[in-house]
Amino acid sequence: MGNAKTAITPTRADDYPEWYQQVIKAADMAENSSVRGCMVIKPWGYTLWENIQRALDDMFKATGHVNAYFPLFIPKSFLEREAKHVEGFAKECAVVTHSRLVDDGQGGLKPDSPLEEPLIVRPTSETIIGASYANWVQSYRDLPILINQWANVVRWEMRTRLFLRTTEFLWQEGHTAHATSEEAMEETRKMLEVYADFAENWMAMPVIKGEKTEGERFPGADHTYSIEAMMQDRKALQAGTSHFLGQNFAKGCGIKFLNEKGEQEFAWTTSWGVSTRLVGGIIMTHSDDDGLVLPPKLAPKQVIILPVLHKADDPGAILEYCAKIKAELENQLFANRALQVEIDKRDIRGGDKRWEWIKKGAPIILEVGPRDMAQDSVFAFRRDTGEKKGVGRAEFIATAVERLNAIQDNLLARAKAHREEHTHKIDSKDEFIDFFTAQNADRPEIHGGFAMSHWGGTAEEEDALAKAHKVTIRCVPLEGENETGVCPFTGNPSPKRVVFAKSY
Amino acid sequence: MGNAKTAITPTRADDYPEWYQQVIKAADMAENSSVRGCMVIKPWGYTLWENIQRALDDMFKATGHVNAYFPLFIPKSFLEREAKHVEGFAKECAVVTHSRLVDDGQGGLKPDSPLEEPLIVRPTSETIIGASYANWVQSYRDLPILINQWANVVRWEMRTRLFLRTTEFLWQEGHTAHATSEEAMEETRKMLEVYADFAENWMAMPVIKGEKTEGERFPGADHTYSIEAMMQDRKALQAGTSHFLGQNFAKGCGIKFLNEKGEQEFAWTTSWGVSTRLVGGIIMTHSDDDGLVLPPKLAPKQVIILPVLHKADDPGAILEYCAKIKAELENQLFANRALQVEIDKRDIRGGDKRWEWIKKGAPIILEVGPRDMAQDSVFAFRRDTGEKKGVGRAEFIATAVERLNAIQDNLLARAKAHREEHTHKIDSKDEFIDFFTAQNADRPEIHGGFAMSHWGGTAEEEDALAKAHKVTIRCVPLEGENETGVCPFTGNPSPKRVVFAKSY
Repeated sequence: MGNAKTAITPTRADDYPEWYQQVIKAADMAENSSVRGCMVIKPWGYTLWENIQRALDDMFKATGHVNAYFPLFIPKSFLEREAKHVEGFAKECAVVTHSRLVDDGQGGLKPDSPLEEPLIVRPTSETIIGASYANWVQSYRDLPILINQWANVVRWEMRTRLFLRTTEFLWQEGHTAHATSEEAMEETRKMLEVYADFAENWMAMPVIKGEKTEGERFPGADHTYSIEAMMQDRKALQAGTSHFLGQNFAKGCGIKFLNEKGEQEFAWTTSWGVSTRLVGGIIMTHSDDDGLVLPPKLAPKQVIILPVLHKADDPGAILEYCAKIKAELENQLFANRALQVEIDKRDIRGGDKRWEWIKKGAPIILEVGPRDMAQDSVFAFRRDTGEKKGVGRAEFIATAVERLNAIQDNLLARAKAHREEHTHKIDSKDEFIDFFTAQNADRPEIHGGFAMSHWGGTAEEEDALAKAHKVTIRCVPLEGENETGVCPFTGNPSPKRVVFAKSY
Repeated sequence: MGNAKTAITPTRADDYPEWYQQVIKAADMAENSSVRGCMVIKPWGYTLWENIQRALDDMFKATGHVNAYFPLFIPKSFLEREAKHVEGFAKECAVVTHSRLVDDGQGGLKPDSPLEEPLIVRPTSETIIGASYANWVQSYRDLPILINQWANVVRWEMRTRLFLRTTEFLWQEGHTAHATSEEAMEETRKMLEVYADFAENWMAMPVIKGEKTEGERFPGADHTYSIEAMMQDRKALQAGTSHFLGQNFAKGCGIKFLNEKGEQEFAWTTSWGVSTRLVGGIIMTHSDDDGLVLPPKLAPKQVIILPVLHKADDPGAILEYCAKIKAELENQLFANRALQVEIDKRDIRGGDKRWEWIKKGAPIILEVGPRDMAQDSVFAFRRDTGEKKGVGRAEFIATAVERLNAIQDNLLARAKAHREEHTHKIDSKDEFIDFFTAQNADRPEIHGGFAMSHWGGTAEEEDALAKAHKVTIRCVPLEGENETGVCPFTGNPSPKRVVFAKSY
């Protein structure tokens, strides 16, 4: 608290990727498991995910969606129903081929009872859900279908990183079917707005809403939209996607309906999802060299109370005083539910305890010793600013929600300022190369951030640029200036600037 | 409503298993998917599961547990770490052997990139969670670990039935580790109590708490406890289990700790779970020949409002009146959250609409037409008793929670009476055979119910009895009379009566 030594080694400046791993470890959020690429999400990390789920689920329900559950397994033939889709996912999927293990004659077991048709562990559920929708939809009266699913999915990723990219991950996938193209597009954009709203107002993570270019589209989609956030290392994180699937999957799965004129038509579908990757986004947006910093609205606990008992004549009285404060706080609503408070009574050194909660990102830590109690006050520490001071108990209780809102607002403002600072208009090829590669010759990971540049190239030219500079077009922003210009790479005209960035 | 024709064909008396399938279909709760043995849980069924989850999760947290998430995949070698465990689960499991699909040269795809070690899709997670606990536990100070996981699991079942037995199902699995045998046993029994409390007070399903005999134990457990409920066809449903695992899995997984004396010891572990099978239990305990009947505390909606618009001069006024009633109801707490109300405005025949909600098991249906509005009243239908009458609006609002509690209580009382009626003390072999097989010669599915009989046989004798009469010992009850006696099958002494029944 305030000394130059930091709780996390290395610091962000020294080694950002390793700092990220160490923050997760110090906060006890997750770890790698014995299964290649699969993580164990520990209670502190999982509670954060539960809070994300609760808030998003409320938003999905408020926009007319209901939850359902579809099978984990997808028959191989289903995946083959949409050509681009199978091409996108066949390369990295878990294939179930047998339904039994038997003695291998060497003291171990071997797979037995081969399946007639291999099953794929879902990497995403368009085809298996589409098969159900095809049965459910006969007439325009059966539309729209507005369903979301909370589930685990598996993609056989080669290089994994906790929360950001894991073989198995948790997510939600919305799948909707509509009678018209317009309605499906409206849904696609509406859910993008929901994601952006959630990112900014719950995660305190500002995002740019935009459309992906052709090369970055979801396999099988006509249009893919995403929200893109800037992390502290200036890289972009794609934090949520919403896809307009046209009639591609409806044709592949046979989702047909009789329209009002009595004609057969294929439905128009969408899908949209966010995953446990959001936890990685929260970590990388807000945390510092002392560990995790959490937006109060999603924190597993908003206030931690540390009774200081070692110098106390009457420890029982202090614990009672703490319990009273806890009850007074829990009586208040914050982020649509009771304020979450924990009293840490463990018999370990006060300094160790405090550091543990700092590293875990608790927004407010209260220390309460005999002197505080005598003065009917608490000693309050604010995680985001490091501010610490004594406050009267009654005043603290009366202002707790306000204080938490102030932290939430500060985190958002800080993240916005960081993004503004590292977003630049780029108008020439040299400038572009300099922005991404020559910021610091010894430290290639240091680069400019978001380059707002005009673009008029083909998908092939975009791909070549990405390979040359490890930079991609994150999105074509939906909002902002519609300033026309010239693409510095091709000389072609460009209707608006796009966001180029390095990314996760 | 009240005529002799029933909404569900066949009736319970005619064909109980088929009636069960038809209730699910009529309520639109779930259906079989294209994937063998896997079901699609549709929104009405899934919301019921969400409500079960919410209530149980609160109870788990109130008893000191936290949630976490562990990998879907279990390396084959992990499963082999506990001899009885692998024997129990190897026979029916989904085995992942490849991580990629490639062109098979015939326009299709074939599995490629074989894994070094096959992975099993978790049938239960003792071994994979045990591997993590082994890393987390060093000292007695690291114990107890009290973790729950909400997850999907897969068991390659040959004969499946919606909710009751499916290849993939949703469940929760608690996994705890303790420093002493006593503490682990206390946890095992505590969670059995939580399940029994939930079954009775939320599902309105009375249960017998008891211990399983050796042959019915969880593979790898020292003691297995269960709650057993009687369905309307007098068969038993095992609705939840809690296992005392001794040090078996700790030894297999290496969960060791230094005790207070500085000696290495293996930890003592427990596991406990309930699944989407509970949905099947609710259906079979309460529903009738008109379809689903739901306990109000778990119903997706407690009150459905049907505006009767076709004779109305001013439909807008009726809709406004309905909206006011909805808001007044939603302002009230029921089952730890806002009362759930839906206004069904669809433009379809009133009778069809009413029947739809009856079949879906809505506890209370309100019909509101011009005359009701003129009298400031509603026409209220109560699902469990069929009672229907006009009630003043203000009176209905003031008594809604009371009415829902009365339905909840009635369902529990009815289920208890049914169980009492069909539970009999059996004292001879002839009586036993008569009880289970000779109740109705033409209808072998009709049998006595729960036979409370003494038992003093071996595991082999129990197995032979089960094979001969398709009857098993459901449990040795923990409560009730400790009446000693003589086993009618073996003549051996018996410390107390056990529960024999046919079962799901």
